[in-house]
Amino acid sequence: MNSFIFANPTKVYFGKDQLVHLGEEVSRFGKKVLLAYGGGSIKRIGLYDKVTAELAKAGMTVFELAGVEPNPHHTTVNNGAEICKREGIDVVLAVGGGSTIDACKAIAATARYEGTDSWDLVTGKASVKKTLPIVTVLTLAATGSEMDGGCVISNVEKNEKLGYFPPNAYPRVSFLDPTNTFTVSPYQTASGSADIMSHIFDMAYFGNSDEMDMLRRIQEEVLSTVVKFAPVAVKDGSNYEARANLMWAASWALNGFLYDGIVQDVVCHQMEHELSAFYDITHGHGLAILTPRWLAYVLNEETAPIIKRFGERVMGVDPTLGLMDGAKASIAALEKFLFETLGLKSRLSDLGIDDKNFAAMAKKACGAKGKIESFTTLTPADIEAIFRMCL
Amino acid sequence: MNSFIFANPTKVYFGKDQLVHLGEEVSRFGKKVLLAYGGGSIKRIGLYDKVTAELAKAGMTVFELAGVEPNPHHTTVNNGAEICKREGIDVVLAVGGGSTIDACKAIAATARYEGTDSWDLVTGKASVKKTLPIVTVLTLAATGSEMDGGCVISNVEKNEKLGYFPPNAYPRVSFLDPTNTFTVSPYQTASGSADIMSHIFDMAYFGNSDEMDMLRRIQEEVLSTVVKFAPVAVKDGSNYEARANLMWAASWALNGFLYDGIVQDVVCHQMEHELSAFYDITHGHGLAILTPRWLAYVLNEETAPIIKRFGERVMGVDPTLGLMDGAKASIAALEKFLFETLGLKSRLSDLGIDDKNFAAMAKKACGAKGKIESFTTLTPADIEAIFRMCL
Repeated sequence: MNSFIFANPTKVYFGKDQLVHLGEEVSRFGKKVLLAYGGGSIKRIGLYDKVTAELAKAGMTVFELAGVEPNPHHTTVNNGAEICKREGIDVVLAVGGGSTIDACKAIAATARYEGTDSWDLVTGKASVKKTLPIVTVLTLAATGSEMDGGCVISNVEKNEKLGYFPPNAYPRVSFLDPTNTFTVSPYQTASGSADIMSHIFDMAYFGNSDEMDMLRRIQEEVLSTVVKFAPVAVKDGSNYEARANLMWAASWALNGFLYDGIVQDVVCHQMEHELSAFYDITHGHGLAILTPRWLAYVLNEETAPIIKRFGERVMGVDPTLGLMDGAKASIAALEKFLFETLGLKSRLSDLGIDDKNFAAMAKKACGAKGKIESFTTLTPADIEAIFRMCL
Repeated sequence: MNSFIFANPTKVYFGKDQLVHLGEEVSRFGKKVLLAYGGGSIKRIGLYDKVTAELAKAGMTVFELAGVEPNPHHTTVNNGAEICKREGIDVVLAVGGGSTIDACKAIAATARYEGTDSWDLVTGKASVKKTLPIVTVLTLAATGSEMDGGCVISNVEKNEKLGYFPPNAYPRVSFLDPTNTFTVSPYQTASGSADIMSHIFDMAYFGNSDEMDMLRRIQEEVLSTVVKFAPVAVKDGSNYEARANLMWAASWALNGFLYDGIVQDVVCHQMEHELSAFYDITHGHGLAILTPRWLAYVLNEETAPIIKRFGERVMGVDPTLGLMDGAKASIAALEKFLFETLGLKSRLSDLGIDDKNFAAMAKKACGAKGKIESFTTLTPADIEAIFRMCL
């Protein structure tokens, strides 16, 4: 069993009507706030008005960065950082999903960088010692960015999507109000749910670590929470119980507790980042397409026990099946859940993706190491084969 | 479903050989440290030498408070606070179990109090705005004090044992090394395990809150972790896997995550505090004796479903039993676990306690409200009846 450090400094306000605390929390850091958001859905649901009203009550001066895109671009980050420097911003407020929050983390770092290009930081060419404080108001249960310290930024010119961990970039405060996710579409709800599951699969569950039994059991309960409530939220977007369970599950899938002490490559995320970098698809949907095919590809006598256990404990697969049959039934049950129950299209070709970039993407996914070590070791040829299984 | 705030600032170093980070962490807060510990077991297991060596390497000046007792006394707290004031202590280091850590929290508060009597703070007659920073090295999996903000202090002259929540008294850093619990006796291991379970029962599991499904499932897994590993640790104290699972389970049973959003009186803790206040018994053992009798007392058609569910999901009780039979079987399974598997004596009379103080204790347990509201509402007459069931 590995040693580890657990520390998560994010203060979470969870529930409806918690936004009344936004002003007091944001104003703790100063008077000038950069308010960042995406394509405008926060205006349609009335959240923009509520947020700006609370900020006004607290006497904050608000500067805005609108239009943060899904798979946020480093150029958008540069724009945000430029506002921070020019206006002397004290605190960055992300109102949106994981993309907006991720962009704000990179903005908060680039605002402290003497250069102007955030890509220098994301690629590790340069570094900063500090970041501006970040506060978030979450509108999508998916990435867990509201309670973790990392972000993923895309460079569309280079077809690159990279993870970046600025110093102290955990949000200081996050507001998780399930009602702010009521209008999330069935498609985005399904994709976000696949993302939550993939964090647990990729960070911890499907791996070779000698893991603490308690944590593996809890991973299974968080997975079961998604299996129970994602279909409810897909059908009935305003179901508070379903939205609340999914929202808190998303945060806990990636806040450190479920996987501290386990160090492994996140194989489906590595593969999916290439898909998003080349084709700008919805991250969670890419993960949904990849995960069962990856499991089928790596299935063997050694990997079968945990795949079988997943099916029994999370998907309701018959525990009396033999080892390989049970593992295969687990993968089939996961496919059925993602592609029938949640209604996600099951093939890359459904998203207009063909095989022309597979070789290049597989090589990039394996990075400088030339392989991904997780559960089983995968070479670029393996990754390319998995991409082909998804066509 | 209630709204809540989750925030837990404690940084945890978990695992063997993490103590090398002690010096760097303690010295972040200054140069003068008060090292508090209990009856000397930390010297027998070599931990005292390791801790003082790390502190010396970091250039710390060490002042000592030895002999912190189980159910720590307010007079001991006063002594510790006096040292802090006299020597200008920067940081308080607790090396021990929950009692030592609890004492240090009250010391850290009283050190900032212009008066000299910690009981003023514990009883709410006076308050402080700040506390000295606290670091802990844990030696017993039980109270969860290493990752929460409260403490329980006893006034032996008054037969009173009260909870106290100083401002910002969460340990800044806690070192959880399972090997430091290898020499904990079977009796203390069993009592500590009962304490862990009771935190989950009392704070959240047996209650009427409209709770998040994910949290209830996770509570069951943490309970199952104790049921699985406490017997292993009782039999084989040096089993790292068992000690590690119990240690992390103890912290998570009381760090806020499992019960945030649920507000209820902690009924068995209220009753047990009176037992410890009058008879100075081991806290976890008192809880073990009380819990199944309390469940039997409150069992009715309304409370039965969750009691039955506990038995099925945690204790392996036959799920095909009817409602009341299943609930009774759950309570019987819990009794068997505590009193046979873990070997704890099952009756207050085994601890030399008779009924002469029951009426006074029952009245005190109900406090100013005159009742305990949790699961069912209990009056002093009810509490006295439960005490009698434990004789």
